[in-house]
Formats: sequence, C-alpha cells, structure tokens
Amino acid sequence: MRAVDLIQKKRDNQVLTRQEIEWLISSYAAGTVPDYQMSAFAMAVYFRGMDMQEIRDLTLAMVETGESIDLSAIPGIKVDKHSTGGVGDKVTLILAPLVASFGVPVAKMSGRGLGHTGGTLDKLEAVKGYQVERPQKAFIKQVQEIGLAVIGQSERLVKADKLLYALRDVTATVDTIPLIASSVMSKKIAAGADSILLDVTVGNGAFMKTVADAEKLAETMVTLGKEVGRKTVAVVTDMSQPLGQAVGNRLEVLEALQIMQGQGREDISHFICDLAKIMLKLAGVEESLAVIHQHLVGGRALRKFEEMIAAQGGDLKDLYRPADARFVTEILAEESGYIAELPALEFGLFAMKLGAGRAVKSDCLDYETGLVFEKKVGDAVRKGERVACIYSQEELGEKELTEFQKNVKIMRERLVPKEIIKIIS
Amino acid sequence: MRAVDLIQKKRDNQVLTRQEIEWLISSYAAGTVPDYQMSAFAMAVYFRGMDMQEIRDLTLAMVETGESIDLSAIPGIKVDKHSTGGVGDKVTLILAPLVASFGVPVAKMSGRGLGHTGGTLDKLEAVKGYQVERPQKAFIKQVQEIGLAVIGQSERLVKADKLLYALRDVTATVDTIPLIASSVMSKKIAAGADSILLDVTVGNGAFMKTVADAEKLAETMVTLGKEVGRKTVAVVTDMSQPLGQAVGNRLEVLEALQIMQGQGREDISHFICDLAKIMLKLAGVEESLAVIHQHLVGGRALRKFEEMIAAQGGDLKDLYRPADARFVTEILAEESGYIAELPALEFGLFAMKLGAGRAVKSDCLDYETGLVFEKKVGDAVRKGERVACIYSQEELGEKELTEFQKNVKIMRERLVPKEIIKIIS
Repeated sequence: MRAVDLIQKKRDNQVLTRQEIEWLISSYAAGTVPDYQMSAFAMAVYFRGMDMQEIRDLTLAMVETGESIDLSAIPGIKVDKHSTGGVGDKVTLILAPLVASFGVPVAKMSGRGLGHTGGTLDKLEAVKGYQVERPQKAFIKQVQEIGLAVIGQSERLVKADKLLYALRDVTATVDTIPLIASSVMSKKIAAGADSILLDVTVGNGAFMKTVADAEKLAETMVTLGKEVGRKTVAVVTDMSQPLGQAVGNRLEVLEALQIMQGQGREDISHFICDLAKIMLKLAGVEESLAVIHQHLVGGRALRKFEEMIAAQGGDLKDLYRPADARFVTEILAEESGYIAELPALEFGLFAMKLGAGRAVKSDCLDYETGLVFEKKVGDAVRKGERVACIYSQEELGEKELTEFQKNVKIMRERLVPKEIIKIIS
Repeated sequence: MRAVDLIQKKRDNQVLTRQEIEWLISSYAAGTVPDYQMSAFAMAVYFRGMDMQEIRDLTLAMVETGESIDLSAIPGIKVDKHSTGGVGDKVTLILAPLVASFGVPVAKMSGRGLGHTGGTLDKLEAVKGYQVERPQKAFIKQVQEIGLAVIGQSERLVKADKLLYALRDVTATVDTIPLIASSVMSKKIAAGADSILLDVTVGNGAFMKTVADAEKLAETMVTLGKEVGRKTVAVVTDMSQPLGQAVGNRLEVLEALQIMQGQGREDISHFICDLAKIMLKLAGVEESLAVIHQHLVGGRALRKFEEMIAAQGGDLKDLYRPADARFVTEILAEESGYIAELPALEFGLFAMKLGAGRAVKSDCLDYETGLVFEKKVGDAVRKGERVACIYSQEELGEKELTEFQKNVKIMRERLVPKEIIKIIS
C-alpha cells in the first residue's frame, strides 16, 4: 500500500477500507508514513469527511497504536466522562465525586488546557501537593479503595492521537468531525471505562460553533461508542458564556467547593445533577434528582472529593485557601438591564492572558489568577452593581478594563440561557 | 505570520495577500515552514483553488527562491517552449533546431521523464557523449555561437518548486491548476526567455484529461506570462495517442532525424511547422508554413540539430545508429478497418516497463527499447498488416503481447485525429 494512493482516494471522495485505514494509522504511528502525508490526508478528510464505518475503523486503528487500560480489577460498571472543552468548565471536579458518592467507581483520566480552554488536571494541580501522574497500579488501587481517582492520561495511550493531534493543531485540520470524534473516542476506549458520558460543548467558547455541528459530532460519537460496545450518551451543552462563575484554576476549585457546600449558583448545581443522573443511569443506578441534589449539596460529594485530594497527595488545608492574587479589580455594570452576553472565547482568552491558561503548550500557569462572574446571562443587574472580579498579579490598565467591559453585554430584555441543549443516546 | 493561519485562510476559501504568499514560499524554501504544513496548504489549494492574483504572486515568490538566468548577452528575442508532458513527445528535438535555423536564438532548459511520460534530456542522452549539464557561461556562449542549446535545468533555479513538486508527488496534490501553472511558469520565468510557447497536452496520456481543464490551465499560464511581461502563447494539443511514431529514447531521436530528413509522417511534420510558426512569430519573425516546411525537411533544421549535438559533445556517428534492442516484435492488425484508439497512457507505461521510462526517479533507463507505431489513429489497416514494432531486451511473453494488442483499437468507421486543438494567446 502507498500513502499517496490513500490520500488521493480520500481526496477523490472514495471510501477507505478497514485495511487501508489500519495500514495508514499503524504506519503513521510507526513513523513510516511521514507527517507531510498525514497532514495532506487530514486536509482531504476536512473537505470530504468520512462515513461512519471509516470513523469506526479509524478510531479502533488509533486505539491499537497504544496501550489500553484494563479496569476489570475494579468491580462494577465504570463510567467515564469527557467534555470537548470550554471556559470555566469545572464540571469534572464536582461530577466525579458526586457520582462516586453513590458507590459508582470513577476512574478518570483528564487533560490539560490550551488557548482559551481550561483543563481538569490544571485545576487539580492548583491544590498544593496533588499528584496527577500515578502508576496504573496505584490508580486502580485508589479506585478500589475510595471509588474515585482523576489522573493525567498515560503517555502510552493512543500514540497515533498524540502525533495526529499535534499535527492537526499546526495544519488547520482540527475542526473536522471525523478527526475530533476519533480523537476523543480512541482515548475513551483505550481508557477502559464501560460507559461514557460525552459533554459536547457548543457556542463561541467551544470547538463547535453551531448546535447543528455539535449535534452531528455528538451523534457520531454516540454511534461510534455503541458500535465498539460502550454504552454512550452525549449531552450538547451551552458554551456561549463561561460555565458557572469562575474562570481560572484555583478560582474554579473554590467554586466547586462552594457548590459542594450548597453555596453555589443554583443553575450550575442543577446542571451537574442532570449530568450525574445520566452518568448514574449509565452505571445502572437509577436515582431521583432530589437524592442526587442532596448528595451534591449535603456534603457527600465534598467528602468524596476531599478523600480523592488526600489520596493523591493534595493538602486539604491548601484546598480551601483563597486565591493568592495581588490585585482584585471589580467590574461594575455600566447600565441597568439584564446580562445578555458574556462571550466565553473572549473571557477565556482574557483569563489566559492573566496567566490562568496557556498560549502554547510549554507556557507555565499562574493558578491564582482568573475571573469570577457574579452575574451571568439572564441575570438582572442595576447600574453600578458588581458584575465580575478580575484576579491578577499585575495592575490592570485602562485598555484591559475597557476590553473586559465591552464584552459584558447588557440589554433591556431578558434572554433565557440554556444549559443542556439536547441529550443524545 | 504563522503558516497555520495561512492554511486555514485558504481552507476557508479566503484570498491570500501577496505578503502572505511571499512569506509562506520563502519560509518553505528556507526550511522554516515544514513539509507537513506545505502539504496541508497544497491540499487546501486543491479544493479551493487560487485566483489569478494569487497564482501570479505564488509564481513570482517561487522564482525568488532561486537564481534567474540572464540571457541578455544573447542578442535577439529568446523564445522558450514547454510541454506539460506526454508519450512520444519528441517535439523539442525538432522544433528547437527548426526555429534556430531561422536565426532565432533558442536557449532551452529541459527535464527528465517520469512514469509514462518521457523527457527531452533523456532522449538527447541516448546519443553517445551528449552533455546535458553545462555551466551557464558555456550554455550562453553556445547559443551566441550556433544559436541553439538544450541543457538540463540548473539545480539553482526555483528551489521552492523542487521542494514543492517532490512533496506534491507524494501527497496527491499534483493535479491542480494553480500549482501546475506556478510550477511551469516559475521555471520558465527563471530560465530567462522573452517569449514562451506552452504546449498543454490533453487526453489519456496527459496530466489534463479534459479539453476544458487543459484550456483552463493554458489560459491561466498565458495570463500569468503576460502579467509578468513575457509574451506567451499556449497550444492545447492532443495526447490521447502517442505523439508521432516512436516511444522510447533512441527510437524517438531516430524519428526526429527521419522527420528532419523529410521521411517522417506528414501529420507530425505539419504539426511541428504549426508550432514553429507560432514560436517564430513570438520572436518577431513572420514566415510562411511553406518556408518553414522547407527548413524542416530540406536539411536546415537537421544541420542545426547536428551542430548542437556536436557542440554538446555528442557523437554524430552514434546519432544515426539504429536502436540496439535484442528483440523486435511485430504487432499485426487482428482485423481490417481504421485505427480508432492507441491510448497514450497505456503505451507510455508499456514502454516504461521495457526500460524506456522510469517508475521512480532513481531508475536507470534503457535508451534502446521502446515502441514504433506504423499506423496511427485514423489510418486504414488490413488484417495481418503491421501496426507497430516493440523493441525490447527480453523476449516478450504472451501476456505482454495480449496487453499490447488489446490497446490497439480498430473500428469500421474512420475517426479524424486532432493535433492542435486550440491556440490561446
């Protein structure tokens, strides 16, 4: 087989066979198909797409290029959760211990943030001592003992995805459904869970900019999951504004703690309960939202979270420490009305510039900086009332404040924000 | 500037600026934009195309990545000629000395063959001693002295094209008009001629499979040539059957000699006279077809050709030697009628397998092997009459003969072959 023929075949809108896809991906992982052929192939896929069978073959071929985690030593149905990324997305910090508080084992591998999007690992590392790198044995043992672990993805999983993702990032071939779906699902399949909840974000702060695209991605991944024998449910969720109140690593941990203490915003608490209900059902546990809410705000989720932090070396005193930012700048409403828009992308980039995110992979984070919104889309606000606080290490200039302020859109009519837009199962 | 942004811009069907194209091409030639970004870019161009301004900017940016030949030391209007490639295309061997026989200087750089297509350099190298590599000074001196030289393209011309062509070849991004046009024209512009005749071949043995595509490529290159101040004319010519009678290096030299001795097929003699008339006009010389034909068949073109062979070290005795093939196999007509089809691609590949062409660049050639057609499309043939001879070093098996025979299509009705399909100026 020759890579050039397979590139041409895809370019000419023909369907690749399983053997062709397996050969291409294994050769790429082995280094015998070079990056310059793979990037041309990825661009051809961008324009031509792939059918469901091709996406399935691609995903499984990718899984084969690395190790797979065997979670069979952990009794029960293991449920994984994945978000396609967003701004202020601290859902895993709350949802994982909440689900684990029902005795459903959660053995989760998470990633880091890049650009305007945050990553669960970075948030957990805001807690002094927390270890995200754990040997596989210790990872499984922790889930056996306390029912919960959140660690970094093993370097040995899905080699082809690591190579291909880095390549797509620099060749404008990231935002194409077959390659996103196979990237996400190959990692989830290799990570070994029995059931998967996919949170497909949509809106200005997400990869998917339209609900139609998000639904298509969600449907593709759900079909894919089922075809390879994993129970899979996807939720399409709103990422047009930051999720919850905080954006920034420690600030998000603190918001998660507030929510698990019953002091968070109700909308986000309910959103997380909805997701927990789906995850529990995927594990064969039927619980009412009332019971789930009680676990969330009544301390059970929090205790499970603290158990995990401690088990992975985190300092429980440091956990509750306020953010250590030199400057806290208030942003006040310039007029009365309702918050109409808080564009997630712009605020994600704003937080990134404060040090809360990375422009490039090698950037160091400042865990203490970020944003906290006191008003969200749909909230009433009076002129002069506090909308948000900016946590920074440098004093903010007029330019930054004006930039922030112009992204806070206030209107006379109230818009109703959506959280879960659609559930696809 | 970042290459990924330019790839995305093209992918999203936006027009690149001159600065962007210059940056991309100079960075690629300098090695700071890697192959994997350039191949993704090429694939985006395949799908999105380029407008005339982009193609012009691309072509000139490519010229800038290498040396340009200065032909100003040669008095008069220098005319170059380029064919987009074909099977049995010995036109340059005849046309260059024919035009030079009118005192119009021809300083030509040619290329080698690959796959089913032949290259002028390979044909000239079939003559013992002929040197295709000449220092620039010697090249210009020869044209000053005898008015004619055909050498290999300098390695120092259009570095970006060398890199990009090799990359396109292995990433299924060869057959796209903006990249073909800029590749051809950047080399012609760097080669320094004042006027350019482009022979855009069309049909099963050419890059362009349809007349519409060939016309589009021809129009693109003519516009491009004019925009950069070179008089440019393109002819769209038929490459559905091999050009002339012979396919194979020495066999084509012998056919060229026959034509220049007045013993060739009339159709090809007339075809070459038509091209010569255009080339002469590009050099400001108006001659009648009758006078041109007299130069062609009356010995003047031949003497100029021999002068060039001798000037570049070729052995004039070896020039007229018959092909040294161990086996000459006759192919006889299986029925009476008219030759309807002699598919150029299939016969080009057949000749390649005999050693007359290269499957990959590093293959060595057998200059003596090839095919000679005694009948061409439109010719009447009687059952049992000789259609062609195959010159080979190994005895041909039943399989090869059947393969050859099945490509000789004979019909009851006569089809009229076309030579020049269209002239675009």
